[in-house]
Amino acid sequence: MINEKLPKIWYGGDYNPEQWDKEVMNEDMRMFKLAGIDVATVNVFSWARQQKNEDTYDFSWLDEIIDKLYENGTYVCLATSTGAHPAWMAHKYPDVLRVDFHGRKRKFGGRHNSCPNSPTYRKYSTLLADKLAERYKDHPAILIWHVSNEYGGYCYCDQCEDGFRKWLQERYTTLETLNKVWNTSFWGHTFYEWEEIVSPNALSEEWGVDNTNFQGISLDYRRFMSDSMLECYKLEYNAIKKHTPDLPITTNLMGLYKELDYFKWAKYLDVISWDNYPSLDTPISLTAMTHDLMRGLKQGQPFMLMEQTPSQQNWQPYNSLKRPGVMKLWSYQAVARGADTVMFFQLRRSVGACEKYHGAVIEHVGHEHTRVFRECAELGTELHKLSDKLLDTRVEAKVAIVFDWENRWAVELSSGPTVALKYVDEVHKYYDALFQQNIQVDMIGVDAELSGYDIVIAPVLYMIKQGYAKRVEDFVHAGGTFLTTFFSGIVNENDIVTLGGYPGELRKLLGIWAEEIDALFPDKRNQIVMSEQWGELEGEYQCGVLCDIIHSEGAEIKAVYGSDFYTGMPALTVNTFGSGQAWYVATSPEPSFLQGLLRQLCQDKGIIAPIAAVPGVELSIRSKNMENYLFLLNHNEHEATVEIGNLRTSNLITDQKIENTVTLPAKGVVIMKKH
Amino acid sequence: MINEKLPKIWYGGDYNPEQWDKEVMNEDMRMFKLAGIDVATVNVFSWARQQKNEDTYDFSWLDEIIDKLYENGTYVCLATSTGAHPAWMAHKYPDVLRVDFHGRKRKFGGRHNSCPNSPTYRKYSTLLADKLAERYKDHPAILIWHVSNEYGGYCYCDQCEDGFRKWLQERYTTLETLNKVWNTSFWGHTFYEWEEIVSPNALSEEWGVDNTNFQGISLDYRRFMSDSMLECYKLEYNAIKKHTPDLPITTNLMGLYKELDYFKWAKYLDVISWDNYPSLDTPISLTAMTHDLMRGLKQGQPFMLMEQTPSQQNWQPYNSLKRPGVMKLWSYQAVARGADTVMFFQLRRSVGACEKYHGAVIEHVGHEHTRVFRECAELGTELHKLSDKLLDTRVEAKVAIVFDWENRWAVELSSGPTVALKYVDEVHKYYDALFQQNIQVDMIGVDAELSGYDIVIAPVLYMIKQGYAKRVEDFVHAGGTFLTTFFSGIVNENDIVTLGGYPGELRKLLGIWAEEIDALFPDKRNQIVMSEQWGELEGEYQCGVLCDIIHSEGAEIKAVYGSDFYTGMPALTVNTFGSGQAWYVATSPEPSFLQGLLRQLCQDKGIIAPIAAVPGVELSIRSKNMENYLFLLNHNEHEATVEIGNLRTSNLITDQKIENTVTLPAKGVVIMKKH
Amino acid sequence: MINEKLPKIWYGGDYNPEQWDKEVMNEDMRMFKLAGIDVATVNVFSWARQQKNEDTYDFSWLDEIIDKLYENGTYVCLATSTGAHPAWMAHKYPDVLRVDFHGRKRKFGGRHNSCPNSPTYRKYSTLLADKLAERYKDHPAILIWHVSNEYGGYCYCDQCEDGFRKWLQERYTTLETLNKVWNTSFWGHTFYEWEEIVSPNALSEEWGVDNTNFQGISLDYRRFMSDSMLECYKLEYNAIKKHTPDLPITTNLMGLYKELDYFKWAKYLDVISWDNYPSLDTPISLTAMTHDLMRGLKQGQPFMLMEQTPSQQNWQPYNSLKRPGVMKLWSYQAVARGADTVMFFQLRRSVGACEKYHGAVIEHVGHEHTRVFRECAELGTELHKLSDKLLDTRVEAKVAIVFDWENRWAVELSSGPTVALKYVDEVHKYYDALFQQNIQVDMIGVDAELSGYDIVIAPVLYMIKQGYAKRVEDFVHAGGTFLTTFFSGIVNENDIVTLGGYPGELRKLLGIWAEEIDALFPDKRNQIVMSEQWGELEGEYQCGVLCDIIHSEGAEIKAVYGSDFYTGMPALTVNTFGSGQAWYVATSPEPSFLQGLLRQLCQDKGIIAPIAAVPGVELSIRSKNMENYLFLLNHNEHEATVEIGNLRTSNLITDQKIENTVTLPAKGVVIMKKH
Repeated sequence: MINEKLPKIWYGGDYNPEQWDKEVMNEDMRMFKLAGIDVATVNVFSWARQQKNEDTYDFSWLDEIIDKLYENGTYVCLATSTGAHPAWMAHKYPDVLRVDFHGRKRKFGGRHNSCPNSPTYRKYSTLLADKLAERYKDHPAILIWHVSNEYGGYCYCDQCEDGFRKWLQERYTTLETLNKVWNTSFWGHTFYEWEEIVSPNALSEEWGVDNTNFQGISLDYRRFMSDSMLECYKLEYNAIKKHTPDLPITTNLMGLYKELDYFKWAKYLDVISWDNYPSLDTPISLTAMTHDLMRGLKQGQPFMLMEQTPSQQNWQPYNSLKRPGVMKLWSYQAVARGADTVMFFQLRRSVGACEKYHGAVIEHVGHEHTRVFRECAELGTELHKLSDKLLDTRVEAKVAIVFDWENRWAVELSSGPTVALKYVDEVHKYYDALFQQNIQVDMIGVDAELSGYDIVIAPVLYMIKQGYAKRVEDFVHAGGTFLTTFFSGIVNENDIVTLGGYPGELRKLLGIWAEEIDALFPDKRNQIVMSEQWGELEGEYQCGVLCDIIHSEGAEIKAVYGSDFYTGMPALTVNTFGSGQAWYVATSPEPSFLQGLLRQLCQDKGIIAPIAAVPGVELSIRSKNMENYLFLLNHNEHEATVEIGNLRTSNLITDQKIENTVTLPAKGVVIMKKH
Repeated sequence: MINEKLPKIWYGGDYNPEQWDKEVMNEDMRMFKLAGIDVATVNVFSWARQQKNEDTYDFSWLDEIIDKLYENGTYVCLATSTGAHPAWMAHKYPDVLRVDFHGRKRKFGGRHNSCPNSPTYRKYSTLLADKLAERYKDHPAILIWHVSNEYGGYCYCDQCEDGFRKWLQERYTTLETLNKVWNTSFWGHTFYEWEEIVSPNALSEEWGVDNTNFQGISLDYRRFMSDSMLECYKLEYNAIKKHTPDLPITTNLMGLYKELDYFKWAKYLDVISWDNYPSLDTPISLTAMTHDLMRGLKQGQPFMLMEQTPSQQNWQPYNSLKRPGVMKLWSYQAVARGADTVMFFQLRRSVGACEKYHGAVIEHVGHEHTRVFRECAELGTELHKLSDKLLDTRVEAKVAIVFDWENRWAVELSSGPTVALKYVDEVHKYYDALFQQNIQVDMIGVDAELSGYDIVIAPVLYMIKQGYAKRVEDFVHAGGTFLTTFFSGIVNENDIVTLGGYPGELRKLLGIWAEEIDALFPDKRNQIVMSEQWGELEGEYQCGVLCDIIHSEGAEIKAVYGSDFYTGMPALTVNTFGSGQAWYVATSPEPSFLQGLLRQLCQDKGIIAPIAAVPGVELSIRSKNMENYLFLLNHNEHEATVEIGNLRTSNLITDQKIENTVTLPAKGVVIMKKH
Repeated sequence: MINEKLPKIWYGGDYNPEQWDKEVMNEDMRMFKLAGIDVATVNVFSWARQQKNEDTYDFSWLDEIIDKLYENGTYVCLATSTGAHPAWMAHKYPDVLRVDFHGRKRKFGGRHNSCPNSPTYRKYSTLLADKLAERYKDHPAILIWHVSNEYGGYCYCDQCEDGFRKWLQERYTTLETLNKVWNTSFWGHTFYEWEEIVSPNALSEEWGVDNTNFQGISLDYRRFMSDSMLECYKLEYNAIKKHTPDLPITTNLMGLYKELDYFKWAKYLDVISWDNYPSLDTPISLTAMTHDLMRGLKQGQPFMLMEQTPSQQNWQPYNSLKRPGVMKLWSYQAVARGADTVMFFQLRRSVGACEKYHGAVIEHVGHEHTRVFRECAELGTELHKLSDKLLDTRVEAKVAIVFDWENRWAVELSSGPTVALKYVDEVHKYYDALFQQNIQVDMIGVDAELSGYDIVIAPVLYMIKQGYAKRVEDFVHAGGTFLTTFFSGIVNENDIVTLGGYPGELRKLLGIWAEEIDALFPDKRNQIVMSEQWGELEGEYQCGVLCDIIHSEGAEIKAVYGSDFYTGMPALTVNTFGSGQAWYVATSPEPSFLQGLLRQLCQDKGIIAPIAAVPGVELSIRSKNMENYLFLLNHNEHEATVEIGNLRTSNLITDQKIENTVTLPAKGVVIMKKH
């Protein structure tokens, strides 16, 4: 349990009473009660308020807020406010300001605006966290600490450049090693002094988005930036922990956000929390995958849904309303996939600046007689009713999909073979194929233990880190099923090619050699032609993006290409290795192929959907102590009926009895307990 | 009359004999006479020529030009040349150079290149205006002063930043007020010292086009920049006025140009002048609306068409020729809508640099035997024949459309609900619906007196300035018809939301509450379904962009939405308020709906088209002393016949008799007098 | 012959053993032999390796490489490594770093990164060339010198700005002349001191791509930059020539690369070499035209194909493989059009940084059992067999197409009449029409002697340099056929319009006057309607982009426009001038029109295709001493049969006998000797 003080699914969100007068806050207290809100995230952006200059701190207003909330039955998720530095600090200590990708020194403005290697920022952010922790360490309202906010963005200032050199020295010790792992003999880039190294941006090695002359340098700068921000986080973390060793600490992550290596960060978060902002056209399964990824960051430990909007966003091009029922549906989706909180940005809408058209529980009209408030209040009641039943339950999966930020960086920094290759898209194709057939999946990093899984899928595993090939071999040897794809096994963790034939360190395991990699123009397709019917798979499927031209070196050829000069060459192979199987999908197939393929692999391993899939109805199961909670989520615009076998149970939300079939209204949710 | 020295529609344009030798100028004099040209705008870009360094002025060449023109019967519109500073000034006093949106200090180049807060620029531009006025104050050739040229663009240098702080201090007095109106408690932006404030650009609060973190800051910077340039204009204005109190002074505006608040500027112009550059695909009604807007800047006072091209432009992507007849047609369109001059850029084409492919009365071939010259000469003859008949006539309208630059800025700076909302487009939709049915319209600012109108239309009146709601209420109470739309009444002039339910201060008047605002994806439409047939309106119409979800609080529901979860909720309402009516159009409808709606509103007020509309034939009427001048402009590629009732008159251009019907050739124009 | 030491078509390419250990190099030697490789370009990017600081040079590793290659039968094309400066130099002497178009000082990174006016760069690059030449002057391996690499890009730093002023002083002597040729009286740009002049970039006169306020300034800056880099080249050239007067020197050009005036450069190259990187969708005839242009740079002298990829590129969006046979086909295309070498980038793929997915003879797998290697080895064998037969043969043409970089710059810098006009596209339209009917063409500059040609075609000859009109008149007068198009004869070499009517200096020759130039929107077309059938031409053809509206002043009207207000006005004219004809094509026609037109012009001059054209089969002929070598290149995906008349010969590649017809497999090549 995140904090036993509040043994239920937390319900609340970001709250900024410092933008309002006291009368409004009183009204908020009344409405929070109506909505069943029991946790408020406060102090997210108030650094300037609590520290008006270098020496003066004022927490009295915050005391009042926290006391008032607590008196009214609302707990506090206490933020440290370091997500945006004060204007006076930018003015007095310009080292807190970032230099952007184009080499421009920024002025004061925006948020997430501090240089992560700024001595001033590090000093004062740590000090603030320290002061806050000291002051509130014994306050009964505090449930959890929320360090900074949505860390992100990169800086390219001189102090970062200098920090980069130090980071490199620690990592590589000598320039000789550095020159080697960056392959600086290419284009005569040899460095003879550490000072000669500059940060890679639009003034040196990079241009546009993800274009670089030196993949090794750019990759290391991403690592360094992720580490630099993590260091800022850790400084605050440690300052707080010193005072409140028993309170959990988190920072809100952003799902598939590219710039930070969240698997590395997760080690230093007591609990994962994240902000979920799908658009009207975001695939349901992509949101599901992101929840699963966030859950996977700490090996399945329940996470916090820290932010979502009750209805509208403001920063998307077309900010459509969440249709009736959708807010609840998506909230339960988070819970179904491992969230133990449902929290909003924001509890009350601001009156000015850029987020005033972002949805809130309390809208500008100020009263409770709105569709949005009513839906929030209904959900508040339901979560209260669910009490602690779901807390600490786990999602159990026999299939894992590998997701690796560093691999993602490397894939998308690559110059060639194609700009069309997007790592998340390829991973999502495999996830979606399983999602559509109600197969539970764990999203895992490359540090994860594999032995608990029957099937491990690693799409576009371009970068093979030290020891990983061996670990995959062990997994397969012991009976596991491993699947990877085109453009895998190509480089080591410095983006240096493994010589001797693709897929490099995976070649033996997969029993193939990829001689060439063809990039298809966007209007071109090839075909995957099944050698013979296999399960559902027969005949021909479309494929594109990249086509590896491979030779079997022992692998069985399950399908071949259907056109072009490599017609008849393998497109899908399986290699028996020890007691297991290693599959290679040599190109990027259409969804129906992947569904057929993965259904077959699961069947071979005895993995079957607990409930037969119904289009548009999502299934997830959370379990604890032999008890299973089945979630059915109807994302359709219409009613849906699901066969659940001879199960007699009831909907935990409504207490409605259920027998054999469940009929869900459009956007409806059912949670059923099954022993 | 702009200047009684030349009591006819002025005909001429920009003329740069300083680019040529004297022989060419002699030839020009001959050709001006052939073309009936009687006014030349000179000295627009000659600062460097008349001031070769800090201390040396030379006007002898200008004396010669002005004398020569005058001797040859051509009057002078005398420009001050301050639209581009000299190279030596940029070199010696870099403070005249701007810093751009990206924070880059510019070098010498282009035009409209001076920082409006540069002490050097202000000093020397004022001094030059002063010297010119002193020198030419008694020259009989001078008809009018033309200060600088097409003011525009913004600067973000340190002196502007400093000026911004001072401007803010004057406007808000204390930082406490400033922090409040900018809502700086959002994202911890509280300012404790004025020095902490920076200008909002790509280095601080803004990015791309019209994206900002703080609408209040960005809005004020636009005001400040508009004021800064206006201050430059006023410095020159005052310097000139001192010498020639009786000569009118203007500067050429740019129609719908976004960056300057022309209603504020208009107060300091003796006569409005503007540059009209429609493209081949500009809607005719958009040009008409722009003329009407320019006329509206000074409450209907006749204006100057300062620039248009005789044929081609050079700076559009595809610079098509004006088809035969089109130059004349569009010239008369300007006159029909209130222009008392027809002037070109340019009288003679330059031989080098970027405008050499811009059309001119005298083309590179240098003689009069061109299609373009012939058409110019024909128009010259016609304007001579029209003499002073049309001068000082007024366009009379009972319908007004509100146009407000600050509202426009605020609407387009908004983060959410949609990027698809463009203020001018929404205003133009209403204008076009009236234009298509021959209803005369005044374009008015928010300072305008409303009582003279029967109908006032204020599309997307997002920002309600202090006292404006009350003035609209008074107008309606007294019997007026007011119409506004979705996304109106939302904020005050600092872009701070009016709490208590949209449309804020207009809620009582309109008798509705807008609970939510749905943004539609570009490929999505909803429908407006009429509750019952009303006038022409019946059945269903398409709508999009935004859909306000409103509740009637007393207003009559004339139409409802046709789909989505708000099917059946009001889409068009009318509220009786005192003796008048207040209409709300909750979404952005297709044209046929607006035509039906506005025809009905006009009919209810007894406003009818003086002549029944014929597709593609524009009507406008200018009146004076009980005499009306009807303009019919056939924009079609084919002949058109217009029924004019039992009117016997003649075409003032051709003296051709007209009885009952008028037949206009393709691109033809008729001007008829009617008592 | 480029160098008599290797009297055959050289075969090899870029080779970077400094990136590898010695074992790998030994393996490379073995594989080079297998592939028939006899030349390696080394030392292209090794400046940092051979000069680790200001004072220390080390060539021992290069000695080893060159010796080892020579011992193994591979000659050396020795590069000077100055295409990228060392990191230490950038660190110690920042003057070597460029300032980009946006005014940003660059840091160390990339390649082609040195300021061409940097004293440091000029000093050390010259010194390095000198040292290399001194050291290797007697080494028997060296065939040729390769200075720097792919010169390109512009710099806008202070030392370039200063250099620009000096260059201008030399060119124009006085500011008075400068002000005149730049037409600075426009927009008051008059310069009174040289110091006032700044370089034209995004901070001054230019924006986006090819947009400028002052065409004259921008044009001169392009000339200056091209000259500045040429100066760098010449410094190295002279340093080398001093030591090895008999060895040829080149630098690798980039075909249609826009920024450098290759005709001017060609004078200082002993032999032209260039890098050919067509994409999958590059028209075959565009590659052919580029080869012909490279051959034309030195009046038909055989050139070097310095780089091409054996299969894939890495820097295109979609890097498709060269299909089987295509590498050989395109290699022979180069030879067919005048290349005496076939060379690759690269012989061995690098393991890290941005070119590791660029194709190579030796792929990452490292062995010879790849499709790519096999094809390379086959070609190696064939080239060996061809021996010296083709060396020094010439392509003979009676038709020339004029190509001029300065004209290209001016056309694309023009503001108006249309952004759709692309010089290379218009030139290519004419080239393609001839290519499709097997007519050999020379691509010539404006310095070229015309008298040897029957037909000279100069599409969009916008800029007429001093004396050129007279030379064209002489050519026509003596019986030549000249053809030019719309938007020709407009300006002199300073982009100053020739007054008195377009096409200016060509007006008399062409017997027409272009009164107006209409720019068509992209979705619009006009028609060329033949006055009567003429050869293949009859009826109507589509045209677009620009339509000159012309009047005949003696020229015969062969075709007129088919629509718009200029229907019936001339679209195609021919003027008899002395014994010759001058044609004017007033618009941009569809391909079928141009094929018909050019077939007819050729026929009139007795120019006929040596072999009737077969679609997709390219023909080229190289000749020497009355011997002709006919190349047939089948670019189709299918077999093609070509009638060759009663010719008995054999395929020089295969020795297969040929009689009357040749049947080529898909992608097949035949070389036949004909006396």
